[in-house]
Amino acid sequence: MENIIIKPIGIIHSPYNSSEGIPIQGKFKKEALAYAELLPEYETGLKDLDGFSHAILLYHFHEQKEEKLLAQPYLEKVKHGIFAIRSPYRPNRIGFSIVKINKIEANCLYFTEVDVFDGTPLIDIKPYVEYFDKRENVKSGWIEKHFQNKNKVPKQAIL
Amino acid sequence: MENIIIKPIGIIHSPYNSSEGIPIQGKFKKEALAYAELLPEYETGLKDLDGFSHAILLYHFHEQKEEKLLAQPYLEKVKHGIFAIRSPYRPNRIGFSIVKINKIEANCLYFTEVDVFDGTPLIDIKPYVEYFDKRENVKSGWIEKHFQNKNKVPKQAIL
Repeated sequence: MENIIIKPIGIIHSPYNSSEGIPIQGKFKKEALAYAELLPEYETGLKDLDGFSHAILLYHFHEQKEEKLLAQPYLEKVKHGIFAIRSPYRPNRIGFSIVKINKIEANCLYFTEVDVFDGTPLIDIKPYVEYFDKRENVKSGWIEKHFQNKNKVPKQAIL
Repeated sequence: MENIIIKPIGIIHSPYNSSEGIPIQGKFKKEALAYAELLPEYETGLKDLDGFSHAILLYHFHEQKEEKLLAQPYLEKVKHGIFAIRSPYRPNRIGFSIVKINKIEANCLYFTEVDVFDGTPLIDIKPYVEYFDKRENVKSGWIEKHFQNKNKVPKQAIL
């Protein structure tokens, strides 16, 4: 199979310059504000995204140079297969976040529910669609035990 | 910003060799069975994924050579910004599907809820996590009007 060449479409500006205080998923710490600045040539592609409440961002974990097949997630000390966790140490190091859209102005998408480092190269934006992306009867494997209390975010979920 | 080199981690084998009969999202036609065959060196990364009911697949829309900033989705004849639709004509042509895990055997992940063509290069697998990936109070922009009747899949959702 041939390699695939990805050209970043922009950059993510975030208040997180280190892992301190960053949530493992943006929904666990809602107040931080970030924005994705697209290269000017992609601005047209944002048309009508402002009708959606949430967007999916794909980006490159550019600070991780190492790839692992087994790794320890933030939630516990047990190692799992890299495809059963959301760790940045994954092959191809592509990150996936669901963020809450605040506003769109020109080539910039402002959002909250941020779990991305400042300076992260952006690869794609997709609309989050209730009718496509919400599933029922979901089993969340080794993660279930950390969310037994649905009203409480585990303390390991914020670094 | 530098280009990013992606090495496919495997290939998706699917019953869909053309767009005929393929759903625009796997959840709209549940019966088809497909599997992702990882390169043998990635098999270890699947450890513990079998505890999850659903997985997120990232892959390359390898059959699309053209990129557009405005495009027409399957659901309607109106053009929207490429980042407000899920069209394969997007910059970097990365596809995203949530699939239902059937079983995992050695380096193969068998799944249903398939919306991917046979032979598609696989880039990443992530666990779908109820506590991370389901959002409440979602607004789905131009897509809302096609799902007013929550019990009925629009006929344009299957090609």
